[in-house]
Amino acid sequence: MRLRNKPGAEEKLLEYDQYVVAKPDEWKGKWQDRFEKKQPLHMEIGMGKGRFLIEMAKQNPHINYLGIELQTSVIVSALEKQIEEDLPNVQLLQVNAQDLKTYFEKGEVQRIYLTFSDPWPKNRHEKRRLTYKDFLISYETVLDDQGELHFKTDNQGLFEYSLISFSEKGMILKELYLDLHNSDVEGNIMTEYEEKFSKKGNRIYKTVAYFPEQD
Amino acid sequence: MRLRNKPGAEEKLLEYDQYVVAKPDEWKGKWQDRFEKKQPLHMEIGMGKGRFLIEMAKQNPHINYLGIELQTSVIVSALEKQIEEDLPNVQLLQVNAQDLKTYFEKGEVQRIYLTFSDPWPKNRHEKRRLTYKDFLISYETVLDDQGELHFKTDNQGLFEYSLISFSEKGMILKELYLDLHNSDVEGNIMTEYEEKFSKKGNRIYKTVAYFPEQD
Repeated sequence: MRLRNKPGAEEKLLEYDQYVVAKPDEWKGKWQDRFEKKQPLHMEIGMGKGRFLIEMAKQNPHINYLGIELQTSVIVSALEKQIEEDLPNVQLLQVNAQDLKTYFEKGEVQRIYLTFSDPWPKNRHEKRRLTYKDFLISYETVLDDQGELHFKTDNQGLFEYSLISFSEKGMILKELYLDLHNSDVEGNIMTEYEEKFSKKGNRIYKTVAYFPEQD
Repeated sequence: MRLRNKPGAEEKLLEYDQYVVAKPDEWKGKWQDRFEKKQPLHMEIGMGKGRFLIEMAKQNPHINYLGIELQTSVIVSALEKQIEEDLPNVQLLQVNAQDLKTYFEKGEVQRIYLTFSDPWPKNRHEKRRLTYKDFLISYETVLDDQGELHFKTDNQGLFEYSLISFSEKGMILKELYLDLHNSDVEGNIMTEYEEKFSKKGNRIYKTVAYFPEQD
């Protein structure tokens, strides 16, 4: 997405530290304390403006949602939604997803969502794709044994790349949809992107995958 | 495909036993002797009327091709093509692919092709799909360590099912195309089906996968 500099964004993130985690390294192993209730922790990486995260959190009050986004000008939009909604099961975090193991104990997360991640189509940017092997290693570390990666995109190239990357990591596909909106899946929650691209007639791809058990 | 009874088909298969292997169990470990030259052995399972196999064999004289097809009325069409072409690197075989290890030594095959296999869409027919786990076990046994499975279909449901099945078997994807005819792949050889379905605007899916190394 195009990034516009938002005046006052950094100050706003600091001001609302009940929603935006200011010192993430202090919460390692204690993420449940950031929420009203102790319940499964699902994380969206690269949540953008947070529509998917906030909608999921409203529909699933029995799940805690942690939204991760690196860009200040974007995470502030998610914060604005959360200020309005004041959901007890939403927290926001501004870190790089490759550093997850710095901030989370092994197995502390039950599910990771990647929705319409930046495809970084150029080969030289492969390492930035959120399904590049270094990210997968990071996800594997923080997910618990039954933890799942839910990945949705309209970008064919990114989806092809990601399925190859998953297979190289030995990941097992639990679900796979090569045309989600023409499948029999119910209750799909759309992001801003999904709605826009789907209206254009683009296919939406989705998979749910998990890591094989460690020996 | 619709199967028509072809009068005289069985007799024809027996008559041309230089092309159609009559007693496959006698060739275990000795398949190279069926061909003019000793060279890599590629196998198509469910070759149908053999257009893809014959075309591949003409273009790649340095590869031996073995076409497997269970239906008498269909394999006889492949035989008719081979009678006309008389290719030294083509042999035909009428067996069930689940019994491959009865007829082949471990590692005797360098590549397996599945092209436009019957999708068997009903759940109760899952075991008949050529990417069902029992078939994959059979393929793993006869393929050598670098052996690849090349799988092409226009059937979205079968492709989704197969990628899941491959992942459960730990297979690694080397290539993946979710819209082959709009990709930058060159030299794709079309089967009868592929030409027909592609003209209708259907997507063609393809993957190249291999089995992880045995411990």
